[in-house]
Amino acid sequence: MNEVRIFAPASIANISCGFDVLGMCLDNVGDEMVIRKSNKKGIQITKIIGQKLPLETSKNVAGVAGLALLDDLGETHGFEIEIYKKIKAGSGIGSSAASSAGAVAGINFLLGNPYTNKELIRFAMEGERLASGTAHADNVAPVLLGGFTLVRDCSTLDIIKLNTPLEIAASVIHPQIEVKTSDARALLKQKVPLKKAITQWGNLGALVSGLYEEDYELISRSLEDVIVEPIRSILIPEFDALKKGCKEAGALGSGISGSGPSVFALSKGIFTAHKVADTMKTIYQKTGIEFDTHVSTLNYEGIKILEYK
Amino acid sequence: MNEVRIFAPASIANISCGFDVLGMCLDNVGDEMVIRKSNKKGIQITKIIGQKLPLETSKNVAGVAGLALLDDLGETHGFEIEIYKKIKAGSGIGSSAASSAGAVAGINFLLGNPYTNKELIRFAMEGERLASGTAHADNVAPVLLGGFTLVRDCSTLDIIKLNTPLEIAASVIHPQIEVKTSDARALLKQKVPLKKAITQWGNLGALVSGLYEEDYELISRSLEDVIVEPIRSILIPEFDALKKGCKEAGALGSGISGSGPSVFALSKGIFTAHKVADTMKTIYQKTGIEFDTHVSTLNYEGIKILEYK
Repeated sequence: MNEVRIFAPASIANISCGFDVLGMCLDNVGDEMVIRKSNKKGIQITKIIGQKLPLETSKNVAGVAGLALLDDLGETHGFEIEIYKKIKAGSGIGSSAASSAGAVAGINFLLGNPYTNKELIRFAMEGERLASGTAHADNVAPVLLGGFTLVRDCSTLDIIKLNTPLEIAASVIHPQIEVKTSDARALLKQKVPLKKAITQWGNLGALVSGLYEEDYELISRSLEDVIVEPIRSILIPEFDALKKGCKEAGALGSGISGSGPSVFALSKGIFTAHKVADTMKTIYQKTGIEFDTHVSTLNYEGIKILEYK
Repeated sequence: MNEVRIFAPASIANISCGFDVLGMCLDNVGDEMVIRKSNKKGIQITKIIGQKLPLETSKNVAGVAGLALLDDLGETHGFEIEIYKKIKAGSGIGSSAASSAGAVAGINFLLGNPYTNKELIRFAMEGERLASGTAHADNVAPVLLGGFTLVRDCSTLDIIKLNTPLEIAASVIHPQIEVKTSDARALLKQKVPLKKAITQWGNLGALVSGLYEEDYELISRSLEDVIVEPIRSILIPEFDALKKGCKEAGALGSGISGSGPSVFALSKGIFTAHKVADTMKTIYQKTGIEFDTHVSTLNYEGIKILEYK
């Protein structure tokens, strides 16, 4: 086995009440990557199609994540990586996570899987460190594990794959405006009212219960963020209109995807998710701001091996 | 049917990371109550054995809760209530909740169950309002529903019965010191660091997942309170020694029961729970402070009808 072609999916982090702990993996939105063994030691990014991103290994999240894996393995290997980007950088649906996780998953596969997907998370997080300054797992965890994931403790990598109800589908709108993760983070207050924190953890506990019970009404009631969304949503034009429109179109709930600018909505069933995306489009067509929309069922396995030789 | 004798169980609220939202019901610690139909309209508390508590209906939590139910029903009924208190008032294991929930459950039973147990919560909460100034559901919810409960939203009574792993057992030590709920509440800061709030909701989400997965190790790792316990534990002598001793004796975790002064520990299996209670005793015997201990499996049904005629 010398070469593998993989699908590296997009993901949604935070998910309303789950700021900094929850994430979920999308199914038909994502990049493709080709990873092949090479005689040249280390990682070479040989091709990037679809986005202007650095080819230099130490400046590319896939390169940095791949090197972290090779360093840990302590053996001499060489790989070439081609990236066919379909997720836009800065969209808030895990562009850097897809590349970081894709690189380590592909390399791991070609080496005969010395690591489990859970063990790969820490290498992929090095790509996130390069992209945003913090080695967080909110996006790489769902990309590597599939479904809904919860990061209980990032420092010990205590990460749980939650039950994922089969009918949940996501609608995403990506307004073509720039929201830097660092700026979105700077907006947050260091201290929050205890009362709101209690509301937030009540919602998160209920959401996790709703996922296990597959109780869509409970999931809907729990998809509420009283801490981060009220502050960050000012960065996203027409956020309130989107939220109202999604609900009216039948969505279970909606919120900011990661640190934005994408806005996601969850629905029961793909048909409702399409209806919700249509509503998102209608609202944004009036703004003059360019945008993309995506509709996806959830991805229960994470990264997919498409072919190898 | 004119008379019913019930078991009204003790309960543990908060449960480490679940401040103000989680509660669980104990099985062999609780009061007995006899409730009988009377020709005299309203509620008469005719007997209280075991504790010095007011017999006057409007000053007794059972009386107030019972009246709230009768008011809502809008029919003319009369009941006598005898209370055989075994839970000490002010112990922090839901003494007022047992009486409040017991009264409404007994009356409801004698009336042919016009309300579900979930619907009874709001009447029982009126007893809590009398006892502590706030109509909270942290204790009455597990007493009326059994097992572990999560109060997502107290104002809309959005309360969820969580999955309850069969092997969980509780050890409780009640130091005979007074900690008023209002004092314990006054200690808390109005604002908390966002970073700690994230740790707390990560733990709560993981604990709920652990309860559904019946993953005792995950439950153990998640039983951590970084917000309330560090502040309130100063009110409880030897708290740190208890916590350390419980862990060494094999407990999954421990914390303050409700607003204290009782300290609880959860273990996998009743034998470990007994060992943990022995450790609690050994630690407290050195202090000179009087104390009680309890060991209990969980109660999956809540209030029990013992006999009726």
